[in-house]
Amino acid sequence: MTDSNNPSTEDADRDARHKARMVRKKEVIDAGIAAAQDERGVIVITTGNGKGKSSSGFGMVVRALGHGMRTGVVQFIKGALPTGEEMFLRRFPEECAFHVMGEGYTWETQDRSRDVAKAAAAWEVARGMLRDPAIGLVLLDELNIALKLHYLDVEQVIADLRARPPMQHVVITGRGAPPALVEAADTVTDMTPVKHAYQQGIKAQRGVEM
Amino acid sequence: MTDSNNPSTEDADRDARHKARMVRKKEVIDAGIAAAQDERGVIVITTGNGKGKSSSGFGMVVRALGHGMRTGVVQFIKGALPTGEEMFLRRFPEECAFHVMGEGYTWETQDRSRDVAKAAAAWEVARGMLRDPAIGLVLLDELNIALKLHYLDVEQVIADLRARPPMQHVVITGRGAPPALVEAADTVTDMTPVKHAYQQGIKAQRGVEM
Repeated sequence: MTDSNNPSTEDADRDARHKARMVRKKEVIDAGIAAAQDERGVIVITTGNGKGKSSSGFGMVVRALGHGMRTGVVQFIKGALPTGEEMFLRRFPEECAFHVMGEGYTWETQDRSRDVAKAAAAWEVARGMLRDPAIGLVLLDELNIALKLHYLDVEQVIADLRARPPMQHVVITGRGAPPALVEAADTVTDMTPVKHAYQQGIKAQRGVEM
Repeated sequence: MTDSNNPSTEDADRDARHKARMVRKKEVIDAGIAAAQDERGVIVITTGNGKGKSSSGFGMVVRALGHGMRTGVVQFIKGALPTGEEMFLRRFPEECAFHVMGEGYTWETQDRSRDVAKAAAAWEVARGMLRDPAIGLVLLDELNIALKLHYLDVEQVIADLRARPPMQHVVITGRGAPPALVEAADTVTDMTPVKHAYQQGIKAQRGVEM
């Protein structure tokens, strides 16, 4: 900056060290980016017990929409009320195809055979998206839960994922991602809880938890 | 289901066990929700080295927008090109105030004093949002990076966060969240990388990484 006269020697040293560090960092990052040249659709999984799995998936939907891509969302588990993300994204039916599996979390419904039938019907909708090259990104929200509960067959799911259009991205969320699905994915993040408002007696908040 | 005659004994047993497990799970979850009664704005941090921190923040913005809340976003670090989420959210200026700190990642600019000045100016914009009770959720994207590099003073940041309107939610993203900020937060998730497409030679993808 032109107006920073007489910076202390300490500041000047710190700036010089910072600059040297950033030059090295830039070299490492640029080299890594240059080496990664394969362009194709990726499978991203967000799993684990921490907060942010579904939110992260919806953030990627928004990112894709910003690039003018068409998107699809299938939610495999839901509560009785529509979520904020559903209410928002339903405003853009041309840009985002939004499908929600029948009502109720599984611990609300307590009827396994009904849940299996609903999951199978939702997978048919997902499969339709996974066959449509006009859809650039598909979010399969809470699919991991449906797999963990054996509502869907993981091998069939992986076969359908592998048969999708080559440039299509898929984001899969939910705790307990099965190992075979992790193996089939390109990018996997475990969302590890450090602390949660819930443990401190704070109610689930509109706009944060639902 | 009415048409499922003669299910095998094994299936019936599995359904009964499932139902018993779900009844217990529902009791535990309902009790926890009933106990959590405090309603107030929360501070949510997504940190760690894995993918999904910023996406998760943008997902919460979308969730809040779906509930009719006004939102604010300040991005503390950015590249030369606008991200997909920026391009999308700028379509709704009445619903989402979007501010991006001056150009360039720090390892691109390699000029510490300029970065400090830019971070301070961006914090002033953030502070304006943190004083506005009409804004229901504020996303401070990559703030942790600015704190980690000592571009901003963490105690000042925490003081401004504490002085915000009581019902306002704040989401803070970026690797390396400082311990004092983690202490001040309500919900903290560490995004732990399991694997990344980058390591498999796949280029950063539009709609996924940017």
